Amino acid sequence: MVPEVVILRLPLYVRALAQLLVAGHEVVSSHSLGNHLQITPAQIRKDLSYFGKFGKQGRGYNIRFLLKELRGILGLEREWRACLVGMGRLGRAIINYPGFAPQGFEIVAAFDDDPRKVGRVVGGIAVQAMSEIEGTVEAKKVDIAIVAVPAQHVQSVIEDVVASGVLGILNYAPVVPKVPRGTVMRNIDPVLSLQSMTFYLQQMKNI
Amino acid sequence: MVPEVVILRLPLYVRALAQLLVAGHEVVSSHSLGNHLQITPAQIRKDLSYFGKFGKQGRGYNIRFLLKELRGILGLEREWRACLVGMGRLGRAIINYPGFAPQGFEIVAAFDDDPRKVGRVVGGIAVQAMSEIEGTVEAKKVDIAIVAVPAQHVQSVIEDVVASGVLGILNYAPVVPKVPRGTVMRNIDPVLSLQSMTFYLQQMKNI
Repeated sequence: MVPEVVILRLPLYVRALAQLLVAGHEVVSSHSLGNHLQITPAQIRKDLSYFGKFGKQGRGYNIRFLLKELRGILGLEREWRACLVGMGRLGRAIINYPGFAPQGFEIVAAFDDDPRKVGRVVGGIAVQAMSEIEGTVEAKKVDIAIVAVPAQHVQSVIEDVVASGVLGILNYAPVVPKVPRGTVMRNIDPVLSLQSMTFYLQQMKNI
Repeated sequence: MVPEVVILRLPLYVRALAQLLVAGHEVVSSHSLGNHLQITPAQIRKDLSYFGKFGKQGRGYNIRFLLKELRGILGLEREWRACLVGMGRLGRAIINYPGFAPQGFEIVAAFDDDPRKVGRVVGGIAVQAMSEIEGTVEAKKVDIAIVAVPAQHVQSVIEDVVASGVLGILNYAPVVPKVPRGTVMRNIDPVLSLQSMTFYLQQMKNI
């Protein structure tokens, strides 16, 4: 069983390796990769050791090979299909976010319970009523739901999403909903990020 | 030195404790708090032990007391002032995000380099040119910059932000910029979250 914190770091490695490749590098040491990512070389070697042997002592990692392996481990060598639930201001920003498609995440459907929003086309996608989620998830082979509804609605929306057969949820609301076993959820919450930052800001100001 | 992963968990404790208090509870066991957060009770006790002794064996934690202590440790008993850099679609969603102010994060200024955006009022704030950031950060006592500019501009924008005297940066672009020592940065990136989720989704599908 690979610890979840290790899995959480792998996408950072993938991104750094891809940047190094674009910059013309073919080989990278754990020291130099660690410097890039502000992670110790020992940590990088330990993280990678869960998945096999990727480099020879003193020779560094072959970037192209390591990148492909890590992308395969993370499931990034295929396309993933997502739906968006909640078409308020945040939902509209998400559907127009240019970063998903180039990384293999395609938003293929959008849902909202507001009858004034249903039928509107946003970002090239016609908004559907929530009652249609189950059929659409099956028909469009949706793997992931991006949930951008107000905090008080998140729990019940996520229950509908899970019931529709979606296994992965990216939640934008500032609450941590409960999900059944066998569902993977990630929470995006700028306030949580700020609240761990202020610990350090406060210390700096107290010096 | 408290490990950063512990600091990253404290806001989750603060949120769960606040919810328990609102629900009418006064005392909580590490077991019940852990259940709420999907963290082991042993982990919770260890995390809290970095900051003192907050409960008596077998009696649970006094929620009100623990909440106030943790809020103080994290620097949440004061207000923090933020500016927003980048007033594209994402920036406009952020400035209208209703979750910041109730948690003590006030957006007090907004910047963009596009002359068509400068002078416009968005979310009650007049957009200023980037050249004004230094004076504004000083005059408005800005602690934090929320950066919502395209990936290719992030590094240079963040250098300007740091030069203006801001110590904390919340970066929304899908890159990890370099920041000087003494600057705290948090990166919000939905793709990173998705990329660690697909590891588990792929495993489920392979079963």
